[in-house]
Amino acid sequence: MKKLTGAILIVGSPEKVADLRYATGFSTVDPVVFLSVGRKKTLVVPVLEAGRAAKVCSRRVRILTPQEVVGKRSKRSRAEDWAAALLKKEGLRRAIVPGYLPVAVARVLKQRGIQVVIARGKIFPTRSVKTDGERRKMRQVQKAAVHAMRRAVDLLRRARIGTDGVLVEEGRRLTSERVRQEIQTALLEKNCSGAATIVAGGIQAADPHERGHGPLRAHEPIVVDIFPRSEEHGYWGDLTRTLVKGRASARVRDMHRAVARAHAAARALLRPGVAVRRIHRAVQRIFEEEKMFTTWHGARSEGFIHNTGHGVGLEVHEAPVIGDIEGRLKAGQVLTIEPGLYYRAVGGVRIEDTLCVTQRGWAYLYRCPDYFEI
Amino acid sequence: MKKLTGAILIVGSPEKVADLRYATGFSTVDPVVFLSVGRKKTLVVPVLEAGRAAKVCSRRVRILTPQEVVGKRSKRSRAEDWAAALLKKEGLRRAIVPGYLPVAVARVLKQRGIQVVIARGKIFPTRSVKTDGERRKMRQVQKAAVHAMRRAVDLLRRARIGTDGVLVEEGRRLTSERVRQEIQTALLEKNCSGAATIVAGGIQAADPHERGHGPLRAHEPIVVDIFPRSEEHGYWGDLTRTLVKGRASARVRDMHRAVARAHAAARALLRPGVAVRRIHRAVQRIFEEEKMFTTWHGARSEGFIHNTGHGVGLEVHEAPVIGDIEGRLKAGQVLTIEPGLYYRAVGGVRIEDTLCVTQRGWAYLYRCPDYFEI
Repeated sequence: MKKLTGAILIVGSPEKVADLRYATGFSTVDPVVFLSVGRKKTLVVPVLEAGRAAKVCSRRVRILTPQEVVGKRSKRSRAEDWAAALLKKEGLRRAIVPGYLPVAVARVLKQRGIQVVIARGKIFPTRSVKTDGERRKMRQVQKAAVHAMRRAVDLLRRARIGTDGVLVEEGRRLTSERVRQEIQTALLEKNCSGAATIVAGGIQAADPHERGHGPLRAHEPIVVDIFPRSEEHGYWGDLTRTLVKGRASARVRDMHRAVARAHAAARALLRPGVAVRRIHRAVQRIFEEEKMFTTWHGARSEGFIHNTGHGVGLEVHEAPVIGDIEGRLKAGQVLTIEPGLYYRAVGGVRIEDTLCVTQRGWAYLYRCPDYFEI
Repeated sequence: MKKLTGAILIVGSPEKVADLRYATGFSTVDPVVFLSVGRKKTLVVPVLEAGRAAKVCSRRVRILTPQEVVGKRSKRSRAEDWAAALLKKEGLRRAIVPGYLPVAVARVLKQRGIQVVIARGKIFPTRSVKTDGERRKMRQVQKAAVHAMRRAVDLLRRARIGTDGVLVEEGRRLTSERVRQEIQTALLEKNCSGAATIVAGGIQAADPHERGHGPLRAHEPIVVDIFPRSEEHGYWGDLTRTLVKGRASARVRDMHRAVARAHAAARALLRPGVAVRRIHRAVQRIFEEEKMFTTWHGARSEGFIHNTGHGVGLEVHEAPVIGDIEGRLKAGQVLTIEPGLYYRAVGGVRIEDTLCVTQRGWAYLYRCPDYFEI
């Protein structure tokens, strides 16, 4: 990717715009302005945030308040006004912005005579390659996910199978909601949140994004997808196991074997320089060999109906995408491998781990046991 | 506000763009396209999401997949391609978009011959006025916040005061982190998350956005700000109490009395048609009467250094702002009243409730006791 040259400008809330947190280490819900010219980095934050920003940001980031940038009118000013004033102050008439910059901000900049250049691709292409420090943080989060998965497994193990096939724990029906709560509580103990955790049993899991609800049954696959975020530093982890309390049907066991084979095949290809499409195709090929076919018919698509994986970092889905697209892996990238199979009559089976691309191949970020029938 | 006429187009992830969830009831992390022309509403979602969207959305929303909009090329297409194709299909050459629409999306639309009109103000001005159904959901969330506050109060009550003034519970120092975990666990029980909960003791709380960390001390103000979000429907609540374990100093008691007076004065003004500035000025006036002065010096600002309140809904901060700006309240709006005082040598005192503007005045969304010294 061609290196961007010139002034990079980002306007937004670091809580929503991961690039801002990446560039500065600082997070807040309020809008801020970030300007980078060569090695010179400037962050404009609301007065209320200036103290905290100065504590959190690296010393190389200069912290300014709106008043220092736009003067006394700052009380009524918006982030786009700070951005325009900052560029003017720095003698810049051109700014490279990310594609997600709000169109209203771009308009204000243009009205003030600034040329707005939309970056092709990512504004920080190096963000997908994690530093050692980032990897350490992510390993911590993935460890929390593994800890929470173990707690879910323990809970399902403790449960007994009621006469109607529904799981029962402490005299009550065991629900997706209860397992999710167990997972979220385990994550909280590790200072992580897992708000959107998936615990989807039986045919509910035929939809990979269904979060799951209601009583869980024995002998059916339960997809447990845990993606925690650290409350401390904002990095994510990602982990999925498909659990069966009791014995899986022959069909589900076949699906699980196919998914495990596909997972191993994808993993085996991981190394710097490999084309992401090759990894995705290897997964598709194994599913075909295993006669696990994919059919596309809108909302009723079945089989292997999503990508093989995605990068993880300050966003749970970030670069690189491991799918039927261009692109090659780089050493230091952290990504998921998550082949899955979904059939409406059966449900879903997915196995997902978060891995790191190393100089020679790959490594688990933090390894989770191969739970299945429990 | 002038009513928008014409086609309204929104492109983004409903998980991040509350307007999309508001317009459709549907949420996903993936990008979607929403088009509204008069009463005709269309939502384009990735194939994987179509089943869930059809279940969740009202029947008046037509659900389409990218393939149905752009045809066979849909696998490689981006949300902006779906948007352009949908507009073309509908014979529209002009779209009103929200100011936060990504500039890269706007560019693609323009390249395809579509006139992009940026909405002045909010794209759904009625969003700040809650329906009965929305208010019921928010009441549920606020009730969870009150439940969690009680648990924090109980924990502080159970704690004893160590010889060094630090609070001790079950033989361990009681920390901000521990209280935050207690609150988050209580919220989970009510199917809410409270990831960014503030528990800031002593001088830490002089910064209103400091989340708080480390051991908590007796006889010092502890700002506890709980803003849960329902995992089920995505609405927020918001609640702050300032707690003192033991006895507050005379200075803190004075601050607390001033804040409680300001809170009552602001509440008393709430009714449809009142200017938000009048409410904010009433708070400022009381602080002046109480000789609680505000000084502005960048990161070192002290006194009453934020707005009086903000709307709450599908975002924790949304319209209306209760501050030194134009605007009048409307019946049905749900908002916080949260005067606060912050001095570096002492810390912070804030009292925040979430209230509803009624035809005749106001009502608590769900009332929380006036905890202070405990």
